[in-house]
Amino acid sequence: MRRTSRDIRTANRYEILRHVITESPVSRPELARLTGLSQATVATLVTELSELGLLVEAGFEDSEGGRPRALLAVAAGRGALVGVDVAETYVHAELFDLSLTVVARADREVRPGENGPEQVVARIADAVDEVLEGHVGRVLGVGVSLPGQVDREGGVSVYAPNWNWHDVPLRALLAERIDLPLHLDNPLHASTVAELWFGAARGRQDAVVVNLGTGVGAGLALGGGLYRGIGNSAGEWGHTTLVLDGRLCHCGNRGCVETYVGAPGIMLNLRELSPGSPLLHPDDQTATVRALAAAAAEGQPVAVKAVQETARYLGAGIADLVNLLNPEVIVLSSWVTTCLGELLLDETRAAVARHALRHSLAGAEIVLSPVPTDPVCLGAATFALEQALAPAPRRTP
Amino acid sequence: MRRTSRDIRTANRYEILRHVITESPVSRPELARLTGLSQATVATLVTELSELGLLVEAGFEDSEGGRPRALLAVAAGRGALVGVDVAETYVHAELFDLSLTVVARADREVRPGENGPEQVVARIADAVDEVLEGHVGRVLGVGVSLPGQVDREGGVSVYAPNWNWHDVPLRALLAERIDLPLHLDNPLHASTVAELWFGAARGRQDAVVVNLGTGVGAGLALGGGLYRGIGNSAGEWGHTTLVLDGRLCHCGNRGCVETYVGAPGIMLNLRELSPGSPLLHPDDQTATVRALAAAAAEGQPVAVKAVQETARYLGAGIADLVNLLNPEVIVLSSWVTTCLGELLLDETRAAVARHALRHSLAGAEIVLSPVPTDPVCLGAATFALEQALAPAPRRTP
Repeated sequence: MRRTSRDIRTANRYEILRHVITESPVSRPELARLTGLSQATVATLVTELSELGLLVEAGFEDSEGGRPRALLAVAAGRGALVGVDVAETYVHAELFDLSLTVVARADREVRPGENGPEQVVARIADAVDEVLEGHVGRVLGVGVSLPGQVDREGGVSVYAPNWNWHDVPLRALLAERIDLPLHLDNPLHASTVAELWFGAARGRQDAVVVNLGTGVGAGLALGGGLYRGIGNSAGEWGHTTLVLDGRLCHCGNRGCVETYVGAPGIMLNLRELSPGSPLLHPDDQTATVRALAAAAAEGQPVAVKAVQETARYLGAGIADLVNLLNPEVIVLSSWVTTCLGELLLDETRAAVARHALRHSLAGAEIVLSPVPTDPVCLGAATFALEQALAPAPRRTP
Repeated sequence: MRRTSRDIRTANRYEILRHVITESPVSRPELARLTGLSQATVATLVTELSELGLLVEAGFEDSEGGRPRALLAVAAGRGALVGVDVAETYVHAELFDLSLTVVARADREVRPGENGPEQVVARIADAVDEVLEGHVGRVLGVGVSLPGQVDREGGVSVYAPNWNWHDVPLRALLAERIDLPLHLDNPLHASTVAELWFGAARGRQDAVVVNLGTGVGAGLALGGGLYRGIGNSAGEWGHTTLVLDGRLCHCGNRGCVETYVGAPGIMLNLRELSPGSPLLHPDDQTATVRALAAAAAEGQPVAVKAVQETARYLGAGIADLVNLLNPEVIVLSSWVTTCLGELLLDETRAAVARHALRHSLAGAEIVLSPVPTDPVCLGAATFALEQALAPAPRRTP
């Protein structure tokens, strides 16, 4: 599967724009150094991106005796992107300028039982309408992250275990409500790109982004770029076996990592320790995880024990990633991580150290995501940007 | 961690030579197509490799009206390489010509209790001496594959769980006996390169090579090349958790994949089914696995059941690889696979299908290694070749 010259051109434009966005302002020689492209190639790509209105000159820097070097920045206001994070319990939409700064936000709740495709499409479209309200100027595209497995080319939600969706043509359904280029992918891939561009994976060769929400998974950044697998399904660490013949999972298997460290799994960990715990909000995983976090922060023994038990499972599962992939950094991300924070991190680090091979772990850091906004919205917006950079496609019949 | 221009030049030479070896005879335009390099770069690299005596012209092909195109082949007799497969119970050494055809073989047994570094070094050196006996001409290097985790640059066996080796400076010890360039790595990496060049991973983007021996592991070929991880330790799938709090493993963890599907684990599977089975040869895992294979082939119920039980564990472990990495092909390799063959393959395929996500498995084949010789020796020889292609290094003090 060799890449065409058009693929390579798109990828190079994307790499240049990525580095201008993340390093801005930056000179052409610096871009050549950062991308490994020749100075001539960088010059051509910068001209193309400037002609597309995406780059501008932003001052000069001294060049040790030579002519001052022009510095480049992204033309932040010359276009906008929308990123949408669709999770099992909520929809977040964010409008970004071309420097990937958030300029508007909208939220919708997805209540239990209201997760049919029509209902989810309505939530997404409402949230996108809201962030675009009053916006003037071109919108390059909308990136939508959906839980589960997504066929990017086809625009199909192949499988969303927590909703029991199979082969839902979501892009076509959304296109009836949103008249902009639409790009689908999943939160593992989106949050991984956010970490690569702006977070803990920046400048790293091999990184794993562990997403803990209702569902869980591990986005893989290998060799400095997002690893997708042959069918765009890489990262389903939530559906790897931690306890053979263990807890039943939505996916039909037993003992999956997700059944121990996803939000419903954490509720079960708590229930097993204390069946009548007042921290348990049946049918509301968000409220339960928040209550657990607050109680653990206060040192309530049952809450602390439930976080430790969760970290024990999580640590064993992360040790599997360390041993198999030998990454430089493991980033913990998504809303369950945000709720449980440092306490979960400390307990998890200790559990990983008990399970992982010493040499495999020696090169690895385990950190909380430093991305200050929703990394899934941010990553989804980069997917829309990537597609917008492709030279005009020749449609094949 | 950006590659230097010297790294890129070595990698390009290696890619050209690899394709000449595997596609021989081959024209310059075809090499450009196969490698994605420009015709000018290919011409330069072919000249360099010819000057090093590694390539020769081998006839011409028509070029549809133009000048006939020269075909290139490797100068098979202009150098030799040694590959050594050091396993827990044996040492295999093979001498290769530059087309990577085996020209001599030697074997040594490693008996239980005879696996201290001095003893293993003696076996390796004896086997290398034997394959080089009577050989005339230059030997470019010796690649040695050691079980466990290996520091390539340092030439150190970092950790070999089945021997309880820690930080053994094996290259230095070997250098006292072998006066040739020595390159250390492990069987996961070696067998994966063998599959990429000559086997089931050839032309594939994303492949996993599952090695089943005394130890087990999974070599990863991602994006068309070997994936090593940040400390050259990627692939330790044998030490991922399949059964939390399960069987005790050499590595100190419990429930590792290896304790269920490595040769000692298979012995234990058999013993749990039939404690007094005559198929069990205490202290001889090779004899036990062979006896089990023969009995299962004859349909002996306990033997068939032991293979099925092993395949149940193996299938769950391989499903983890499918779900996490979404590869195109999973290749089963090494001596336990060779012994148990089609029966293990069929049962494993069925078990993977029970555990893996449908969409993740849809793009994947599970096959036995088609490499006709020892893939670990072959891969180890390619590592020696790769090092021999590096332009003369500038040693830093």
